[in-house]
Amino acid sequence: MSYKTTLAPGMVLARGVGRCLSSLGFAPLTEFVPARGLRVDVIALGPKGEIWVIECKSSRSDFTSDQKWQGYLDWCDRFFWAVDPSFPTEILPGDAGLMLGDGYGAEILRMPEAAPLTAARRKAVTQGFARQAALRLARLHDPNVNLAEF
Amino acid sequence: MSYKTTLAPGMVLARGVGRCLSSLGFAPLTEFVPARGLRVDVIALGPKGEIWVIECKSSRSDFTSDQKWQGYLDWCDRFFWAVDPSFPTEILPGDAGLMLGDGYGAEILRMPEAAPLTAARRKAVTQGFARQAALRLARLHDPNVNLAEF
Repeated sequence: MSYKTTLAPGMVLARGVGRCLSSLGFAPLTEFVPARGLRVDVIALGPKGEIWVIECKSSRSDFTSDQKWQGYLDWCDRFFWAVDPSFPTEILPGDAGLMLGDGYGAEILRMPEAAPLTAARRKAVTQGFARQAALRLARLHDPNVNLAEF
Repeated sequence: MSYKTTLAPGMVLARGVGRCLSSLGFAPLTEFVPARGLRVDVIALGPKGEIWVIECKSSRSDFTSDQKWQGYLDWCDRFFWAVDPSFPTEILPGDAGLMLGDGYGAEILRMPEAAPLTAARRKAVTQGFARQAALRLARLHDPNVNLAEF
């Protein structure tokens, strides 16, 4: 059985994106909630505290139906789309970053300009990242750890 | 089969400690490496960014053989020992915190004075916490994420 039969298309791509990010020294976390009502596909924390957000889009309709992505820009230093080779990249805004990949890996085709977070926002995102990742890990080992992630 | 047959005594206690911490709003992470050569049993990140370290000691010899614990004080706002009811608590330094527990839970018997980290140290520990937790989680889902935790 292929893993593709058990993961949604966006999550297959997120796996390749995670490999790309870790090869660049970034620690990836999927399904991060930066604020109530927002959930990003992948957030990544770099070796110097850099914060990237990557939205994985499996199809044109997956992109056009996303009403929230501009809200993600406030929570990262750099924002990327990640798509597979069949995606019509011309419909994506040109100032965001672009990763091309599949379930096995990804590469950065366009590195966006950095728009650094304020120190206070960076601190809040890093703390939220740390707590959500640790709680998710703790719950895998012990379902009785029941503090809400957010 | 009891879980106690598959976990070392300190790790059994760490599970109860994790439950106690999460009930207080803290996200626990086991086996955190704050700096090369140091590894703490449990670190926890509070809702306001507070950083606690908890060392789990299963026996007198487990405590007396620990040459490194004073080095942990530099990496947290509050430091606790966690022991089970059979432990001779009179041998523990009285200015550290004390948790009493088992594999199912724990409670704080003595809350230590806070010795707040500097802002720079807190930032570094929080970033390290976030990266180590996320990488461990990512590797559970994908063994090909192979960035070193530290």
